[in-house]
Amino acid sequence: MAIGILNSVFASDHGSVVSMNLFVALLCGCIVIGHLLEESRWMNESITALAIGVCTGVVILLTTGGKSSHLLVFSEDLFFIYLLPPIIFNAGFQVKKKQFFRNFMTIMLFGAVGTLISFGIISVGAIEIFKKMNIEDLQIGDFLAIGAIFSATDSVCTLQILNQDETPLLYSLVFGEGVVNDATSVVLFNAIQSFDLSHINSTIALQFVGNFLYLFISSTLLGVLTGLLSAFIIKKLYFGRHSTDREVALMILMAYLSYMLAELFYLSGILTVFFCGIVMSHYTWHNVTESSRVTTKHAFATLSFVAEIFIFLYVGMDALDIEKWRVISDSPGRSVGVSSILLGLILVGRAAFVFPLSFISNLTKKAQYEKIGFKQQVTIWWAGLMRGAVSIALAYNQFTSLGHTQLRGNAMMITSTITVVLFSTVVFGLMTKPIIRVLLPSSKHLTRMISSEPSTPKSFIVPLLDNGQETEADQGNRSVVRPSSLRMLLTTPSHTVHYYWRKFDDAFMRPVFGGRGFVPFVPGSPTERNGHQWQ
Amino acid sequence: MAIGILNSVFASDHGSVVSMNLFVALLCGCIVIGHLLEESRWMNESITALAIGVCTGVVILLTTGGKSSHLLVFSEDLFFIYLLPPIIFNAGFQVKKKQFFRNFMTIMLFGAVGTLISFGIISVGAIEIFKKMNIEDLQIGDFLAIGAIFSATDSVCTLQILNQDETPLLYSLVFGEGVVNDATSVVLFNAIQSFDLSHINSTIALQFVGNFLYLFISSTLLGVLTGLLSAFIIKKLYFGRHSTDREVALMILMAYLSYMLAELFYLSGILTVFFCGIVMSHYTWHNVTESSRVTTKHAFATLSFVAEIFIFLYVGMDALDIEKWRVISDSPGRSVGVSSILLGLILVGRAAFVFPLSFISNLTKKAQYEKIGFKQQVTIWWAGLMRGAVSIALAYNQFTSLGHTQLRGNAMMITSTITVVLFSTVVFGLMTKPIIRVLLPSSKHLTRMISSEPSTPKSFIVPLLDNGQETEADQGNRSVVRPSSLRMLLTTPSHTVHYYWRKFDDAFMRPVFGGRGFVPFVPGSPTERNGHQWQ
Repeated sequence: MAIGILNSVFASDHGSVVSMNLFVALLCGCIVIGHLLEESRWMNESITALAIGVCTGVVILLTTGGKSSHLLVFSEDLFFIYLLPPIIFNAGFQVKKKQFFRNFMTIMLFGAVGTLISFGIISVGAIEIFKKMNIEDLQIGDFLAIGAIFSATDSVCTLQILNQDETPLLYSLVFGEGVVNDATSVVLFNAIQSFDLSHINSTIALQFVGNFLYLFISSTLLGVLTGLLSAFIIKKLYFGRHSTDREVALMILMAYLSYMLAELFYLSGILTVFFCGIVMSHYTWHNVTESSRVTTKHAFATLSFVAEIFIFLYVGMDALDIEKWRVISDSPGRSVGVSSILLGLILVGRAAFVFPLSFISNLTKKAQYEKIGFKQQVTIWWAGLMRGAVSIALAYNQFTSLGHTQLRGNAMMITSTITVVLFSTVVFGLMTKPIIRVLLPSSKHLTRMISSEPSTPKSFIVPLLDNGQETEADQGNRSVVRPSSLRMLLTTPSHTVHYYWRKFDDAFMRPVFGGRGFVPFVPGSPTERNGHQWQ
Repeated sequence: MAIGILNSVFASDHGSVVSMNLFVALLCGCIVIGHLLEESRWMNESITALAIGVCTGVVILLTTGGKSSHLLVFSEDLFFIYLLPPIIFNAGFQVKKKQFFRNFMTIMLFGAVGTLISFGIISVGAIEIFKKMNIEDLQIGDFLAIGAIFSATDSVCTLQILNQDETPLLYSLVFGEGVVNDATSVVLFNAIQSFDLSHINSTIALQFVGNFLYLFISSTLLGVLTGLLSAFIIKKLYFGRHSTDREVALMILMAYLSYMLAELFYLSGILTVFFCGIVMSHYTWHNVTESSRVTTKHAFATLSFVAEIFIFLYVGMDALDIEKWRVISDSPGRSVGVSSILLGLILVGRAAFVFPLSFISNLTKKAQYEKIGFKQQVTIWWAGLMRGAVSIALAYNQFTSLGHTQLRGNAMMITSTITVVLFSTVVFGLMTKPIIRVLLPSSKHLTRMISSEPSTPKSFIVPLLDNGQETEADQGNRSVVRPSSLRMLLTTPSHTVHYYWRKFDDAFMRPVFGGRGFVPFVPGSPTERNGHQWQ
């Protein structure tokens, strides 16, 4: 009977159950192979999943006699409702908040302003070049959408290689930019779709900017509020008293609720869920029992991990979908041309903001070790060249209707997006490990490299680094943060902001919302019962 | 894919986003209220969720002007594919294996034979009485389905009250019977639907029995094999070396794969996933790192917990769906009559197997403390009177086509099922706590009560109990299990079977599949990195 049910859900016949089985088995396969290739010099999990996806696509294509290449049709809904939220939430939940907020301005500069610059360059470039190439069917809205689509980076590959402890500044910049960039491009894309762009004037442009800012700020606020609410409820009611499961369940549900609320108010769910994750890890996570902490930490990471593999497998399989390629098969040269142009625009568009913005960012920093060195700038530039599932999802949203890509221009944009994603992920991705090894040669010297002062005696850097980056690690040992010297206050103004935030946090936030140092009620009987359960 | 459907159910228009938000918020509300009512004498989480569901249904009914009462249409698909598997898997994963296998024969007697007896009585009773009441439209297949539908018990209420440590025998009997009963009634239901029952003869009856046994045995085997495979892979490849997330992801995916494979081979996914859970907790769980153990234990429990609340909320909301009630609104008396008759048949059908089978079970036990006392028999009888979501899902499957209940007979059966489920869960459920307190008065005396020998000196019972129930708890301290006296071998033959299983397990299974005592590779850097991550 359950079979009958599967039929209605998975669209037709027993074949669909086969598909589901194959897909789950492939996911397991990706995990096992990814584990075996962990030590490899070139590969990483994303490329593995992509490769397995493409291979499976070929096999399916051959078995079905060229009819279809995927087990599941790519659906943006699946992507935006079920796969993206856990990834972004986990990003917020696991982010090193200290580093993130320390570099907040730089991250926003790269993630928001940089994405807008890249968007502008790609859009204008596409308009100029594609018009010359005589590509029909594309409106002004389509070109702007192309700008947004190809401004959405995918820094998973790079983050898998960078080490959060060895290169904290670099890691937080690449990571932070990645998240803000995702949000910016999606918000941008939505804004483009909802505005009538056929006749742009200054009023509309102003409205556009206002709309963008409104989305950004209100989404952030919503995420923060939901996170605080969860912290408050869990602290107030001592959930751990009766059951750790309730705590975990409530955290998961509240996180998801924040995303759904954002959708309800037409805000950006990505930004909301990201800030909800940050607040939850700062307050809520400290209010729950020890088991719940371990569970949530790993459960969120696992969810995000599976969702990521899922996406790459999905994209790999969908890449060979024959229908799309058939439409553009009479002009393969032009198709290759379009993809190459887009790749070129991506390279230029990114270079056009990474280096100037790094320069601006360096101007505001007084301390040498906070500045972004040239090699690090190159790394940041490289880290954002890959395009991933967000681009694909946006492209599908813009250029397909009901899963079919009939118009020639639309079909070409879809296939070009897939080509760019595959090429950038595989080729750029494979080169990432070697390039980073060249740029940041040895992990032992990295701390010095970041400071750009290899000769500085360690005794000088360490106290600074310690104060800035490690204090939150020594729990409760707050006295260290007190600005002990005027020099530090002057040279590093962001420390001061952080210092006042800490004071505010300690005086007003923690008493209400808990957080680090809050000791949750340790349940007597449930722990005992749990202990006994495992015989 | 699935989301295409979910999408059409939930999220396509903005109204559906509102529904999703409300639903997630209600889930959070149920958790919070359930937590607050934890100490209550009468309530439990299921009744709370059901009550909230009904209240919400009323509110929606009033707001929509009587159009609909639910946020989501009840779908068996959602139930059987997403909600039931985690519940059953978690049941297998958390079960006290020792107790379960010790009482295996009794559990099977209650769960399989008992369910068949109950099925027979309810079916025959329904045929006799309903024919006299002149209820039209029901075929022989429908009556047999009614038997299967109302044989599916829901012992969640009782299990929330019984204490696994205080009354281990009772707990394992009620729990084990619940799971086997779920599986039996679903398998039975499938068998009924797939056979042509209009002319029953001995060949068909024999085929039916053969089919039933085949489903039972092969489903179990499939679950065991998948579980062993997961243990083997994780042990062989030392996953913990690189990442705990991979371990957790693999366990979850393999568990789901076992369910999907069962569907693929037209087997019973419930049985498969249950035994997969048992094997995973016996082998796989011991092969992973400490963090993964905590994570999987709580993550599975949480999933199951949320799924349970989801179901009760869902059922509560669906109960008021106006369309079904309208069809039978001209004969409310008859509808009440049908529900009452069904409730009566449930009471009789359960009594008809609990007491005789307890008697038979007691005959095979030599030791007094293994026998089931009369008060315990009454508790077991009571524990299985509630009907829950499985009954509803099966009823929908049998009596609706495409969500509509046009035929009068069908509509009546759906509304009767809902009435029986609501009445039994709320009324019987509310009475459970007080009744169990009367039957098993004080937790301090319970160990003695089970032994039915209140006067036996503790020094006599404890070694027996210890040997039987606690040895697996002292890890590695295996020598205790050696049958040190001939008396024990003679009085408790099941100990001997268990002893040989232990020998086999130690000699052949553990070396290949790991399990308790297997020390997984403890990763150096990942742990350190994880530790640092929380700043």
